[in-house]
Amino acid sequence: MSDALFASLAEVARRLRAAYQRQPGVNEASLPDRESVALLARQLLTLLFPGYFVAEPVGGARLDDFLCARLAAFEGTLLEQVARACRYQARREGGSEPEPAALRGLVAELLADLVAVRELVITDVEWAYANDPAASEREVVVLAYPSIVAVSIQRFAHRLYRRGIPLLPRMLTEHAHGRTGIDIHPGAAIDESFFIDHGTGVVIGETSRIGKRCLLYQGVGLVAWNPLARGADGELVRGAANKRHPDLEDHVTIYAGATILGGDTVVGAHSVIGGNVWLTRSVPPWSVVRLADPELVIRQRRSV
Amino acid sequence: MSDALFASLAEVARRLRAAYQRQPGVNEASLPDRESVALLARQLLTLLFPGYFVAEPVGGARLDDFLCARLAAFEGTLLEQVARACRYQARREGGSEPEPAALRGLVAELLADLVAVRELVITDVEWAYANDPAASEREVVVLAYPSIVAVSIQRFAHRLYRRGIPLLPRMLTEHAHGRTGIDIHPGAAIDESFFIDHGTGVVIGETSRIGKRCLLYQGVGLVAWNPLARGADGELVRGAANKRHPDLEDHVTIYAGATILGGDTVVGAHSVIGGNVWLTRSVPPWSVVRLADPELVIRQRRSV
Amino acid sequence: MSDALFASLAEVARRLRAAYQRQPGVNEASLPDRESVALLARQLLTLLFPGYFVAEPVGGARLDDFLCARLAAFEGTLLEQVARACRYQARREGGSEPEPAALRGLVAELLADLVAVRELVITDVEWAYANDPAASEREVVVLAYPSIVAVSIQRFAHRLYRRGIPLLPRMLTEHAHGRTGIDIHPGAAIDESFFIDHGTGVVIGETSRIGKRCLLYQGVGLVAWNPLARGADGELVRGAANKRHPDLEDHVTIYAGATILGGDTVVGAHSVIGGNVWLTRSVPPWSVVRLADPELVIRQRRSV
Amino acid sequence: MSDALFASLAEVARRLRAAYQRQPGVNEASLPDRESVALLARQLLTLLFPGYFVAEPVGGARLDDFLCARLAAFEGTLLEQVARACRYQARREGGSEPEPAALRGLVAELLADLVAVRELVITDVEWAYANDPAASEREVVVLAYPSIVAVSIQRFAHRLYRRGIPLLPRMLTEHAHGRTGIDIHPGAAIDESFFIDHGTGVVIGETSRIGKRCLLYQGVGLVAWNPLARGADGELVRGAANKRHPDLEDHVTIYAGATILGGDTVVGAHSVIGGNVWLTRSVPPWSVVRLADPELVIRQRRSV
Amino acid sequence: MSDALFASLAEVARRLRAAYQRQPGVNEASLPDRESVALLARQLLTLLFPGYFVAEPVGGARLDDFLCARLAAFEGTLLEQVARACRYQARREGGSEPEPAALRGLVAELLADLVAVRELVITDVEWAYANDPAASEREVVVLAYPSIVAVSIQRFAHRLYRRGIPLLPRMLTEHAHGRTGIDIHPGAAIDESFFIDHGTGVVIGETSRIGKRCLLYQGVGLVAWNPLARGADGELVRGAANKRHPDLEDHVTIYAGATILGGDTVVGAHSVIGGNVWLTRSVPPWSVVRLADPELVIRQRRSV
Amino acid sequence: MSDALFASLAEVARRLRAAYQRQPGVNEASLPDRESVALLARQLLTLLFPGYFVAEPVGGARLDDFLCARLAAFEGTLLEQVARACRYQARREGGSEPEPAALRGLVAELLADLVAVRELVITDVEWAYANDPAASEREVVVLAYPSIVAVSIQRFAHRLYRRGIPLLPRMLTEHAHGRTGIDIHPGAAIDESFFIDHGTGVVIGETSRIGKRCLLYQGVGLVAWNPLARGADGELVRGAANKRHPDLEDHVTIYAGATILGGDTVVGAHSVIGGNVWLTRSVPPWSVVRLADPELVIRQRRSV
Repeated sequence: MSDALFASLAEVARRLRAAYQRQPGVNEASLPDRESVALLARQLLTLLFPGYFVAEPVGGARLDDFLCARLAAFEGTLLEQVARACRYQARREGGSEPEPAALRGLVAELLADLVAVRELVITDVEWAYANDPAASEREVVVLAYPSIVAVSIQRFAHRLYRRGIPLLPRMLTEHAHGRTGIDIHPGAAIDESFFIDHGTGVVIGETSRIGKRCLLYQGVGLVAWNPLARGADGELVRGAANKRHPDLEDHVTIYAGATILGGDTVVGAHSVIGGNVWLTRSVPPWSVVRLADPELVIRQRRSV
Repeated sequence: MSDALFASLAEVARRLRAAYQRQPGVNEASLPDRESVALLARQLLTLLFPGYFVAEPVGGARLDDFLCARLAAFEGTLLEQVARACRYQARREGGSEPEPAALRGLVAELLADLVAVRELVITDVEWAYANDPAASEREVVVLAYPSIVAVSIQRFAHRLYRRGIPLLPRMLTEHAHGRTGIDIHPGAAIDESFFIDHGTGVVIGETSRIGKRCLLYQGVGLVAWNPLARGADGELVRGAANKRHPDLEDHVTIYAGATILGGDTVVGAHSVIGGNVWLTRSVPPWSVVRLADPELVIRQRRSV
Repeated sequence: MSDALFASLAEVARRLRAAYQRQPGVNEASLPDRESVALLARQLLTLLFPGYFVAEPVGGARLDDFLCARLAAFEGTLLEQVARACRYQARREGGSEPEPAALRGLVAELLADLVAVRELVITDVEWAYANDPAASEREVVVLAYPSIVAVSIQRFAHRLYRRGIPLLPRMLTEHAHGRTGIDIHPGAAIDESFFIDHGTGVVIGETSRIGKRCLLYQGVGLVAWNPLARGADGELVRGAANKRHPDLEDHVTIYAGATILGGDTVVGAHSVIGGNVWLTRSVPPWSVVRLADPELVIRQRRSV
Repeated sequence: MSDALFASLAEVARRLRAAYQRQPGVNEASLPDRESVALLARQLLTLLFPGYFVAEPVGGARLDDFLCARLAAFEGTLLEQVARACRYQARREGGSEPEPAALRGLVAELLADLVAVRELVITDVEWAYANDPAASEREVVVLAYPSIVAVSIQRFAHRLYRRGIPLLPRMLTEHAHGRTGIDIHPGAAIDESFFIDHGTGVVIGETSRIGKRCLLYQGVGLVAWNPLARGADGELVRGAANKRHPDLEDHVTIYAGATILGGDTVVGAHSVIGGNVWLTRSVPPWSVVRLADPELVIRQRRSV
Repeated sequence: MSDALFASLAEVARRLRAAYQRQPGVNEASLPDRESVALLARQLLTLLFPGYFVAEPVGGARLDDFLCARLAAFEGTLLEQVARACRYQARREGGSEPEPAALRGLVAELLADLVAVRELVITDVEWAYANDPAASEREVVVLAYPSIVAVSIQRFAHRLYRRGIPLLPRMLTEHAHGRTGIDIHPGAAIDESFFIDHGTGVVIGETSRIGKRCLLYQGVGLVAWNPLARGADGELVRGAANKRHPDLEDHVTIYAGATILGGDTVVGAHSVIGGNVWLTRSVPPWSVVRLADPELVIRQRRSV
Repeated sequence: MSDALFASLAEVARRLRAAYQRQPGVNEASLPDRESVALLARQLLTLLFPGYFVAEPVGGARLDDFLCARLAAFEGTLLEQVARACRYQARREGGSEPEPAALRGLVAELLADLVAVRELVITDVEWAYANDPAASEREVVVLAYPSIVAVSIQRFAHRLYRRGIPLLPRMLTEHAHGRTGIDIHPGAAIDESFFIDHGTGVVIGETSRIGKRCLLYQGVGLVAWNPLARGADGELVRGAANKRHPDLEDHVTIYAGATILGGDTVVGAHSVIGGNVWLTRSVPPWSVVRLADPELVIRQRRSV
């Protein structure tokens, strides 16, 4: 019996080997991997909100130990994954591989960024509490809201993005997307005090800029008008060079299901965009945009 | 070399400590945490559906052992987290900390609620099977449908909510939200036989009431008309006192993407709401509400 | 003290036992379970994309070991779960239980399917890269995009579905749904080069057929016009016999939030369907369908 | 390459299958296994000494939860392994398989034995403290002494032995032997207040009887004079029917390396046996037995 | 059915609770526990011999990360357990509980001791290699010899012992005893270059002093002549105050099974003690002590 | 506060780095490690005795899956550790590193050895059953006896030893030594049907040869007469070239605590060596060697 089983497995193995020859090939520890990035995200949230995500003693005298052990572990994971990402890019672009010292310097800067991110997420917590009548306490925002997970991870990923680290930033925000249904590209520049209520289905594009104290509901999209536009060479224009997503000025509120499109579209400060609105042009500050009640057809049904 | 690394980590540690001084501070085992709540949800589903969520022997003579060990473990997690939540509230409100005996009594009541929840979820399974042509067997509903996860957890969380336990109910339903994309506030009162097909993007607000045998599809919202309404004091009116989400009477069907808004809105029994409808006023029983086919512009494109 | 606690637990245990008598009863290792199916999905992705999902050495000489160990483990999990599913069906339908040899043969075919699935997912990666300006490298598609997770799992689940294996296919795609917010029924027939950007809220029904090189955005639904239609006997017509979801010909693009309904609806090749469109009838090849800009009401708001 | 590897593994597999045909064959879940018995021993020590072996909260109000969860888990492991052992014996002896109710009754008795064992081990702790000048505190006896591990496990295994449960008692004491170097057969009958200092190399045979307040040092053997004696049929006389190991009356002290041999040998109460003594006959109470200083040859060595 | 089970467990629980009232009671996180001490020992060996005990990357640039993370973790475990041990002693002796700052200072000194221990164990490795003809390479000493485990752990435990930390030192060496069969009391003062070959059954008492370059074989005991001697008050004289174990001067070799007894016994430098010798008095430097061949009775046996 | 902690850790780290410079240095994944060897031993025992050591399903149709997965995993661990050991030796001796193909060939031979080892251990089980009156069933020998663990691991390690693989064989037998107290050098050549009862303290040297059907008790040593003998160059003569341990012919029985010494010593077939005998010269077949009862001094002690 074993023989037939082994023969069958061997045949599958041979054919899979052949199939692995074609891109994207095999990740021979030369790229980051999803498992390690999930670990990185967990380590990040643990450091940003001690005791809220992981059950562990962090009070009083234990805080030093917590910081020492957690920072060291976070630094280790980050260094390994940043190194893989940067070496990968160097190989693709024919550049020289990054020096260990340079990588360490980069990671040291990212550790410093961690403090700045903590400062920002405090404003997010406060803004969420200020805007959700269901938030009975400030702490429940950290303990239960998906917005905190998605925005905190994006804020850190954005730091990696701005420092030119490839692959990792997007992997981090997609990890958050999988956990929350909120998809924010690491390229988006988001100012302080940002909150997304419920959140499922939100999409925020790479080149969006969002001001202070903005508030979004579930299903809102800040997206490209024509995502498939191509340059003179017929190729997609990739990345930040192609400003294709809208901007929000300060204190903008967008209700559920609304879609804002286009790289030149700017929603002026203090504006309110109603639910399900489809907006393709800029509106000045203090605008209120809403769908006129769509015509409804209502009739009485007979009993089943 | 080590020195520079340690110095850099120490600097980050010092600045993080300072940042932890600002709210929401550090959770010194005085609040629930997300990890423990995820454990609680897992223990709940394991008890509600023996053998369906976790691979373990529960058949025949093993059922007694299963019940004994699982109930004891569930009781332990629940007691710890309920105690944290209640003590937290007492501190915030200046009240006295709950007595151990009182906490035990509360948890005993919640264990009894478990049986009632099991009775209800049986009706949910039956209703799902009755309404989904893709459900080839009743068992597949328990094994594969996100609705069962989200509704079962909400039904238990609703019991905690009704008993005035803070923090935990919302953490439980947000856990379910992260797993299913279905966001039901623990405050919502849902009668027997409830089913949500597909489910991603569904939002059901704190003060909604849902009758028997209702059926929802993905992306349906039962939400507030003006979530940011404020009271006379300029503050958000928080919690159940602010009836702001709509009600469904018995046997209502709502197709994908429809949004029902407002605390006075009631969808009458046996009504059907069509896909993408945006409904802000009540409709009587046996209504059929649908979007008149929106005007479409169709033209022939030339070949690329 | 212990006594009261045990008495209370015993009472709950007795009542739960009674509640377990009613369907869906207890899964006495006679059905698959969610935990094992999650393991199966993880083993599948590990084999389809070595090194991308799990941190493990697969490079060079290690690839043989990887293949041997991983294939054997995958085969083991698959055999156990397929056997449970098939025995369950035999019991329900009064047929004879499947022979061990027949089960082994079935699993051997599924292992061979694995190679075909790998071939197809390579085209998906390429097509994703070709269509997302935010995809800076091909590898990032495998490392970060939810589409790859959802479509790869569906492609394998579809093979189980076509071979008539019950329960498992749907459990696999719902597992993917929970991770990505993308809900594709295992019955859907999807040709090569398929990509869904962002993806949250996408629903693709059991009887849809999708051509080559199609591209969908978040929130798109390919759904039934009347999911609750019943046959002459008053029963839901279940499964594939009821063609109720639309088809896409080759190279169709559908933007975010659009809904296509009905089993007779065919979107012709090279068509483009705009965001939020609600389409209930067929359109010929090279169509462009878009919502005429809905009327917007814009007014200036006064300062708060 | 894979092919050769698989072929080689398949060949080894085929030959191992053949080798498994010969006794002791394959344990098809019909016998206990070493891993489960190690778990059982761990659960036993956890219940006998809460908080000393495993880091877990057992103080104050948590003690009820601890007892409930731990007892249930212990009962589950014990039932499974006892059932396996008893069914095995029934098959070997051609008897009928034990009834589930009878097994449950047996396990209930063993749980009651647990309390009696706890009562006894308290006397062991006290006696150890009374006799070791290196024991600075009573608690250190529980926390650090191998004697407590070996004797506690033996005391429980002895209860299984007396109730006629096969296989398991010996597996439990051999597990303790592996951890401590102290090998006490489960058949040995040991009265209260027993202590073995250091312990490595101690062997106590199946038919030994040990009185109250005995004290042994490392390397002591209570063994058979002629372990290979055979009955009239030429077969070894197995088990308890063959009284072949010595007895100790109350308050006997035996120093390191001494060996006492034979089933008729009785060391009288209050006797002291010196280091390395080889004793094959009984001695009356209050005896002191010691090796006359063996003759030593001492000479001066020259420098290396 | 459940009822009977619960009732039976409840009865056992009630009786165990009663039994826990008697010493040694319940360890309410106020004492160290065996599991945590095993972790401490593992962390110690990992730091003393990077890469030899645990499979992890420590080469080149990873060494800094290794040191940072491992030292922080070791410091955390050590602090917690030292604090428990010291608070316990304070309570027993009626003293004041140790200040957090004092505990931290103590742990800082122990971390510094780690370096000194590493220096010493290097001499042990070298000495082992010099004396075992079966040691084909120096590295095999670290990878395979029990002496390295037992002596390294004792050297660190001895530092805790000298600083007056209760409980923990003995728990550490007994952990080593369980792993190796070598039982060295933490009080023993062992100079550089110490090696024990094979090791099983070796016992070295609390008040022994061992010079440089000593070599022991299995089963050697350096023990008390009369371990049960009592002071004027009839109590055992406990601890270091009672010098009751022998001393070895430099470069002493003791073959297997020899026993040296008594607190005044000194084995002079460069002496050799033969196998199984029982030595109760001092011998001058350069002595050779051996058992005259014991008389053997040899006779021819008839065939079986 | 953090600063002082980090500064203290950094100082320790710096000094440890310096201490790591001295031999045995850091194991940069270039040597085997203890953790991996423990895994290897576990994998070996699992394959030799399916279902006895690890709780897993191996019965009936599952045996193929078991063999496939377990062999592949064993092969992977073995290859990695053998490669490390061989590369290490090559570097030390200045030879060229072993070719991957050669390593694979070597491992293939070792896999084949596995079958031969299984054949041998069957004879060991039978012989143990034949000689221990406490062994009530054959299966209890596999389930509980340390001899099976120690001898099975040694038999496999001996194959590695004979093929010239460095480091690993000794690491395997020392792992067994730690678990059982039985220390058999991998170099010892042991014929079929070998059993050691109790076992603690047994030592069998590198150059011993043991015939069929031998039986040993605890504390028996087959050791060198002068382990520190040096060659003409003043160096220890290492390894197999130095025949320094005794031989046993077929069917020899040696009782507890006996020591046989010297490379020329041969115990003739069918001989019996009594407990505690110290034997330094050969004895012919059918000899019985025993200690004449040592003179005992027995006196009556007065009451305490």
